[in-house]
Amino acid sequence: MTRSTALLTDHYELTMVQAARGSGTADRRSVFELFPRRLPEGRRYGVVAGVGRALDAIEAFRFDDAALGVLEDVVDAGTLEWLASYRFSGDVWGYPEGEAYFPYSPLLVVEGTFAEAVVLETVLLSIYNHDSAIASAASRMTLAAGDRPCIEMGSRRTHEEAAVAAARAAYVAGFTRTSNLAAQLRYGVPTTGTAAHSFTLLHDSEADAFRAQVESLGVGTTLLVDTYDVAEAVRLGIEVAGPSLGAVRLDSGDLGVVAEEVRAQLDALGATGTRILVTSDLDEHSIAALAVAPVDGYGVGTQLVTGSGHPTCGFVYKLVAREGDDGTMVSVAKKSQDKISIGGRKYALRRRSTSGVAEAEVVGIGAPPADDGDGDRPLLVPLVSRGEVVGREPLDTARERHALSRAELPRTIQMMSHGEPVIPTEHV
Amino acid sequence: MTRSTALLTDHYELTMVQAARGSGTADRRSVFELFPRRLPEGRRYGVVAGVGRALDAIEAFRFDDAALGVLEDVVDAGTLEWLASYRFSGDVWGYPEGEAYFPYSPLLVVEGTFAEAVVLETVLLSIYNHDSAIASAASRMTLAAGDRPCIEMGSRRTHEEAAVAAARAAYVAGFTRTSNLAAQLRYGVPTTGTAAHSFTLLHDSEADAFRAQVESLGVGTTLLVDTYDVAEAVRLGIEVAGPSLGAVRLDSGDLGVVAEEVRAQLDALGATGTRILVTSDLDEHSIAALAVAPVDGYGVGTQLVTGSGHPTCGFVYKLVAREGDDGTMVSVAKKSQDKISIGGRKYALRRRSTSGVAEAEVVGIGAPPADDGDGDRPLLVPLVSRGEVVGREPLDTARERHALSRAELPRTIQMMSHGEPVIPTEHV
Repeated sequence: MTRSTALLTDHYELTMVQAARGSGTADRRSVFELFPRRLPEGRRYGVVAGVGRALDAIEAFRFDDAALGVLEDVVDAGTLEWLASYRFSGDVWGYPEGEAYFPYSPLLVVEGTFAEAVVLETVLLSIYNHDSAIASAASRMTLAAGDRPCIEMGSRRTHEEAAVAAARAAYVAGFTRTSNLAAQLRYGVPTTGTAAHSFTLLHDSEADAFRAQVESLGVGTTLLVDTYDVAEAVRLGIEVAGPSLGAVRLDSGDLGVVAEEVRAQLDALGATGTRILVTSDLDEHSIAALAVAPVDGYGVGTQLVTGSGHPTCGFVYKLVAREGDDGTMVSVAKKSQDKISIGGRKYALRRRSTSGVAEAEVVGIGAPPADDGDGDRPLLVPLVSRGEVVGREPLDTARERHALSRAELPRTIQMMSHGEPVIPTEHV
Repeated sequence: MTRSTALLTDHYELTMVQAARGSGTADRRSVFELFPRRLPEGRRYGVVAGVGRALDAIEAFRFDDAALGVLEDVVDAGTLEWLASYRFSGDVWGYPEGEAYFPYSPLLVVEGTFAEAVVLETVLLSIYNHDSAIASAASRMTLAAGDRPCIEMGSRRTHEEAAVAAARAAYVAGFTRTSNLAAQLRYGVPTTGTAAHSFTLLHDSEADAFRAQVESLGVGTTLLVDTYDVAEAVRLGIEVAGPSLGAVRLDSGDLGVVAEEVRAQLDALGATGTRILVTSDLDEHSIAALAVAPVDGYGVGTQLVTGSGHPTCGFVYKLVAREGDDGTMVSVAKKSQDKISIGGRKYALRRRSTSGVAEAEVVGIGAPPADDGDGDRPLLVPLVSRGEVVGREPLDTARERHALSRAELPRTIQMMSHGEPVIPTEHV
């Protein structure tokens, strides 16, 4: 869990440290900012996730002997020695986990010496870009699902460690459970499961398989009913488990139509409390389309763990201010027409109407934007203070924050069609 | 590196083990197959990657005390005990790493008891689905790049551990280097790097930054020249480093046009050997479009680590045969119109013409397909034998295999447009 994160880093960060040590600039006070230039095309809001994991990664960013051994060919002896005693001693502020974000939201503000802050670039971006992509997709899915639970089942369709982070991010964005067992061990995300087609095929008959499952796991279990013939399997399931069968799972076919048929059949068999869980390449659009079908829960896999078309957020980590020759801080930004950066330390608040509806993302350059006193919320909180992590919180806190943050966004977020960000970003 | 992989697993696999133990079917001899139903839309071939990582994961699949603690709420005491002593004791055959694949290629054939083979489902799929997605995209990029080197720089745009696996998979598919330092430590992938805009902005002038970099890293270094004005930066770079400057990097603008201008300027300055490296959201299409530009290397990030539009392969892991009541093996498959599976143990060979060009992916059901004797190649090799890993090999072997496997595919693979698989799959 806490193995070193120090090599989850790009080669150039360490050679830049070496060169900056040579030119006497490595210790210049610096402010880096992690931010999005835009939302993924057509998305109306994004969701910050990975904050807790990023804090863990900062704490575990130490170069052990194995790491230093590899780096002997990368940097000089003086830099190696500096890396050997590396420990981030600066300050970090950021949007708390679960918060909504918009273009140019200053999601993280990292202040320290240039050398200590630049080496965190890759690992912070990796975590934020991945986890926020998953949470952003997940939030649209739970929004589309309304009161029906969404269950994360995508581990098999993404890198095995990304799967654990995806389960965590989906939980922040309102998923109720995951299939991923490591997510329970590491982050306390509750798990659940049904059965695979292989379990039915293993047995000499579907009846044998259902009996085995119900006997072992109880009548509250979820039977997978589409291995052979759905209607026959539903009949058999209730025969074996009785009308208190917990749920059936549908994993193929036209889910809306089949769910209607299965609901009618279950009701006719007296199994009015037996739930219908659907799976099979669901995304926010198919979940929305199933709103009128008698479905009691959604198991979501591939489209969740791949960010539903947007597997990464495109966050960047840019130097926005640094100490000058005379010790004062100087705002800096590269000049590029196609990749705009805005120099200067940022502050942010969400402007809200008197009735609590979000109206704008207000980003202050060099100073906090003025709170107009009728419900605006500052967005940056302290995460690391003089090298000590101060922003850790229970995952459920992030999950509750997300629900509140999403609830105050204008209703147009419910449109699943492509569109502009639901509130504008204003720089002041 | 070798921490337990046992919880990188879906909840239902363990409850299925429990239920199968109850019905006396857990020890039935079973054959599972990992395969694709199709290639990603429009792709003409896929590339198998992750084999070596999967073998590591099988070896590390042991339930330690922390894992067993979590599972107390998932399975019963007898199953917990079984898990505590779990060790895969079966056999695995598979396509070796770097090999091309096509729809229904039997990429892995796992034989063991039902219980010992079913629990590997998620972790094997996670590794294969991710790593092969990256390698498949990477192979198209290196194909488009021809003799020019491709460098993997995408760590920041994907999960921090997926990044390491992506660097490894890209190397298999012909990338020459990565920016990811952990990929060097774990897999020996060579690393490289340039500098970020932050390094230029840290200094009081671009000249100061270039001097610092050249003094520390030598004239062979790569200077990033688009922080302010490209032409001025190129002039300055050669003034500082001399005409032996290793390379310049362009990261914005119309790369083809700018590369032409920079090449002319470098040549005029006598820096005829200074290379031009381009980066900035490259994919196989933009690499192909730059073929006529004076570019010496491509740094590829986001589009590589997200599989260039296809971040996962959609591989599935299905029970295809299992022991029956009488001890003989029975072929099994679910009946589903939209998700077709074919029962029975599979074998495969690549049919090649007498001149060595691939003609078909021939999949034998229940028996190896006949080799017609003029150059056909069997595709499955032993990977695990009675629980012992026998298929481990150096990463460079996989890299060389990929080059050979790709070279024997019909020339139409060079078409970057959408199309059908370049050879048909035939079941016999």
